[in-house]
Amino acid sequence: MQTQPLKLPDAVQVVNVGLSLFGDAVRSQGAAAVDVDWRIPAGGRPDLVRALQQLYGPSGARIDAANSEALRRIDEGLPLLTAVATMRDVVPGIDQRTILHCGPALGWPEFCDPLRRSVRAAVIAEGWATNPDAAERLLSTGGVRLDAANDHDVVVPMATAIGPSAPVLVVDNERGGNRAFSSLNQGPGKVAWFGVDSPEAVDRLVWLRDIAAPVLAAALRRSGPVDIFSLVAQGVQMGDDVHMRTQATTNLLLRHLLPHLVRVDSPDLPAVSDFLSANHLFFLNLAMAGAKAVAEWASGVRDSSIVVGMARNGTTFGIRVSGLGGRWFITSAPPVGQALYYSGYGPETSAPDIGDSAVLELVGLGGAAAAASPAVASFVGGTMADAVATTLRMDHICAGRSTRFKLPALGFRGTPIGVDVRRVVELEITPAVNTGILHASDGSGQVGAGIAQAPIACFQEAMLALRDHVG
Amino acid sequence: MQTQPLKLPDAVQVVNVGLSLFGDAVRSQGAAAVDVDWRIPAGGRPDLVRALQQLYGPSGARIDAANSEALRRIDEGLPLLTAVATMRDVVPGIDQRTILHCGPALGWPEFCDPLRRSVRAAVIAEGWATNPDAAERLLSTGGVRLDAANDHDVVVPMATAIGPSAPVLVVDNERGGNRAFSSLNQGPGKVAWFGVDSPEAVDRLVWLRDIAAPVLAAALRRSGPVDIFSLVAQGVQMGDDVHMRTQATTNLLLRHLLPHLVRVDSPDLPAVSDFLSANHLFFLNLAMAGAKAVAEWASGVRDSSIVVGMARNGTTFGIRVSGLGGRWFITSAPPVGQALYYSGYGPETSAPDIGDSAVLELVGLGGAAAAASPAVASFVGGTMADAVATTLRMDHICAGRSTRFKLPALGFRGTPIGVDVRRVVELEITPAVNTGILHASDGSGQVGAGIAQAPIACFQEAMLALRDHVG
Repeated sequence: MQTQPLKLPDAVQVVNVGLSLFGDAVRSQGAAAVDVDWRIPAGGRPDLVRALQQLYGPSGARIDAANSEALRRIDEGLPLLTAVATMRDVVPGIDQRTILHCGPALGWPEFCDPLRRSVRAAVIAEGWATNPDAAERLLSTGGVRLDAANDHDVVVPMATAIGPSAPVLVVDNERGGNRAFSSLNQGPGKVAWFGVDSPEAVDRLVWLRDIAAPVLAAALRRSGPVDIFSLVAQGVQMGDDVHMRTQATTNLLLRHLLPHLVRVDSPDLPAVSDFLSANHLFFLNLAMAGAKAVAEWASGVRDSSIVVGMARNGTTFGIRVSGLGGRWFITSAPPVGQALYYSGYGPETSAPDIGDSAVLELVGLGGAAAAASPAVASFVGGTMADAVATTLRMDHICAGRSTRFKLPALGFRGTPIGVDVRRVVELEITPAVNTGILHASDGSGQVGAGIAQAPIACFQEAMLALRDHVG
Repeated sequence: MQTQPLKLPDAVQVVNVGLSLFGDAVRSQGAAAVDVDWRIPAGGRPDLVRALQQLYGPSGARIDAANSEALRRIDEGLPLLTAVATMRDVVPGIDQRTILHCGPALGWPEFCDPLRRSVRAAVIAEGWATNPDAAERLLSTGGVRLDAANDHDVVVPMATAIGPSAPVLVVDNERGGNRAFSSLNQGPGKVAWFGVDSPEAVDRLVWLRDIAAPVLAAALRRSGPVDIFSLVAQGVQMGDDVHMRTQATTNLLLRHLLPHLVRVDSPDLPAVSDFLSANHLFFLNLAMAGAKAVAEWASGVRDSSIVVGMARNGTTFGIRVSGLGGRWFITSAPPVGQALYYSGYGPETSAPDIGDSAVLELVGLGGAAAAASPAVASFVGGTMADAVATTLRMDHICAGRSTRFKLPALGFRGTPIGVDVRRVVELEITPAVNTGILHASDGSGQVGAGIAQAPIACFQEAMLALRDHVG
C-alpha cells in the first residue's frame, strides 16, 4: 500500500449542533457555520428520557391517534352561551354552604391573601357572615365547604370565588353534549376577583347577582344562544389575544346584545348598561367558559397526552391530562414574569400566578394568540415580532393548529392548540400564560399584568403518570 | 512613457440604476449587482420636470415650511362629534331646493347612473317629487340646485346625496375653529348611497331623518362630544383601516353610546338599536367628517403643496391643494382596480370610483392605514405583507406621519399623512383609495369593493398651477 500525503481540505462546511459556542468559534475565523438548536431532551433526567422513549416510541402511534381525537374536540367544539342562571340551580354538586374558587382544591390555611379576601367577600355576599372577620372565623372553623370551581365544570378568572347564589354564564357545547360555566366578570376597580374584601367589593357581588344578572338573563333570552367562538374568531382579527385583552370581543358582544338590551323592561337597564360599557374584560369569563367546554370535551380520551386543564390559585398550579381524566398534577404557583406594574408596585408586592383563565392557553388563545395582539406585544418586548415569537414558542409544544382562530401576522395560519405534555417535558418549554397580577397582601387589588411561565414540575409528574398508565 | 498592458479586474461590483434588465444580465453571468430603483422624474415630461426643479429648488424651503404647518393641522386637529342636526339648520349656504352630492360639482347630464338614482331618491325624500320619473323631470329642468357637498364643508360616502331636511353629523374642530359635516350612514342593503332609487331606498332616507336622527341626537346630547380620532386611533389597533373596514370603530362608538341610548325615552329606540347593531359602516361617515375637519383646517396655508381634498362623483375625480385654496383640479374618475366582486359582477358592470371618502386617505387612514387591516389585506394580495406594501407606497408620496394612528405591523410607527402633490407628480405614484364599487347602470347597489388608484392628471395640473402661484 502506498501512503498518501495528508491533504487538508480547502474549505470546511460546519454544522454545529447544540451550544452555539463551537459555531461561534468557527465563525470568528471567517468560515460559515450553521447552528442547529438542540438540547438534551428533558434536561437529561434519566427517568424522563426513558418515559419519553416509551411515549414517543412503542406507545407513540397510539398516543398520536388519541391526540388527534382530543385536538378535533378542541377545534370543533361549539360552545354557546345559552343562559345566565343562579349557580345552585345549574352547577352540579353544589350544596348550601359551598364556595367555588379558582385553581386546584386547597385547604383554607394555604389560601393566598387575595383569594382569602375574595372568598370572605363571597361569604358575606351570601349572607353567611356580616364582615370579613366573621367570615374568616366561619371559614377557619370549617363552616363553609370550599371546592375547586374546575371540578364542577366551572372556571373563574383571577381570585374569583362564588357562592350558591352567584349568577353564572351557562355555556353548552352541543357537539360534545357537555356544559361549562363561568362567573360574571366583576369589572374594574376595588373588586373581589382582584383580591379585595371591602364593603364596596361585596356590594359589587350583590349588585351583579340582584341587578345585572336579571337584565343580562332577559337580554339573552331575547337574543337566543350566542356563538362564543364566532365572536372570538373575529376578536383575534381585531387585536385581542382573548385573555389579557378582550376589548374587541366584548364590543362585538355588546353590539350583538344592544337590540336585546334596549327591549328589556327593567328600571335597572341604565345601570347595567353603564357597567357593560365600562368593562372591557366582560368577555373574558365568557371566553373562559367556552374554552372550558371544549377542553372538558377533550378530556378523558384514552391514551391522549393533551393537557385539558391548567389552573392556579395563587398557592398551587395544577394541570390535567386528557388520558388521565380528572386527576390533577400540582406544584407551586410561579411568580408572573415579563410584567408591567402600576406605579409603586413590583415583584416584591405581588401574589403568585392566580386564576383559571390559563384554560384559554390550551385552546389557542392568550399566549398562543399573542401574535394577534398589539396590546400583548407591550408585555413581551414591545414589538409585534416579540408577540409573534411568543406564539411560535407555543407551536413547539402544541400538537395542532386552530382552524378558526387565525393570525394575520402569520399569513392567517391558525393559533397553536393542544399542549402535548410530552413536548413540554422534552423541550422544557411550558405554556406562556397572559395574566393580571394581584397585590400579595394588602387587598389593594390589581397591581399589574404580565406573562407567567407555567412551572415544569407538574408536567413532568403528569408525563410519568401517563407512562405508567399507557405502558 | 511606458505602455502598461491592459489588465482586466478579477471581479466587478455592479450598481445598476433604473431598469433591472442590466442588473439581471450581470447576475445571469454569476456576478452580483445591486439594483437602484430609479425612474425619470414625472415620466420625463419637460414642463413637469421644470416645475419640479422650481418647487423643490428655489421655492423648496418655503413650500416645506408651509407643508409643516399643514401637516401640523392634519396631525393635531381634534374633531369632535357635537350634534346630530338637520342640514338646513347647520350647513352654510343651503337654500330651500338644494341637493348636495359627492365629488366635484357637475352638470346633471353628466351624473353617473348610481348618483342620478341617489339624487332622485333624495328629491323624493324631500317631498319635491313622488317617484323617480317625476324627480328626473324636476332635475333635468333645473328645478333643483345641485352642489358639491365638499364645497359646503360636507363629505358624503359613495353615491350619497342629501337634501335640506336630511340629518347630518356635526363635527367641530375647536383647535382650527372650523366645522365639518357628514350624512348619517344609510346602512347595508338596497339603499340610496349605493345608487338605488327604489321606494325602499327612499323609505330608508325618511326613516333616518324622522326616526333614527332624533334618537341619535338625544343620545349624543346625553353623552356630550365624542372624540372621533380617539376612537379611530383605537380602531387602527383593532384591524380597521377606517375606510373599507370600520367595524372596530363602529363597535367602540356603540359601546360608548350604549349607556346614553338606553336612557333615551323614545318608542323608536329598539328599531334604531337594530339599525346600529346591523351596520358596521356606521362610523365611516363620522370618520370622514373628522378627516374633512382637519383637512379643511390644513387648507389655505400659503405655498403648501399638501393635498387637502380628494373626491369623486363617478364621473370626475378632483383634488384640492392647500396653497391653492378652494380650487378644484379635475379629471375623469378611474375604474376601481384590485377589486373583489360579488358573484355575477365584474369590472364591466361597475361604475367608476365614487364618493368623498377618499378624504380619509389624506389624513393617514384607508390606503395609508392598510398595514393595520387584515380585512384590507384580502383586497391587495391576501397577506399582511401586501397590506404593508400598500402603506409603504403611500409613504413615498406623503410628507409626514401621524403621531396618533399607529401601525403595530410596522413597529407602531404612524401612518403616512399629508400627500405632497410634488411627490405624486415626481414619482408618478398616486394615492391608493380603499373603496366600495357600485353597479354601473341597473340600480342594484353595491357589487364589490377594491382599491382605486387616483388618476395622475389632476395632480400634474395642480402642481403646474402651484408653480405659477408660488413662482
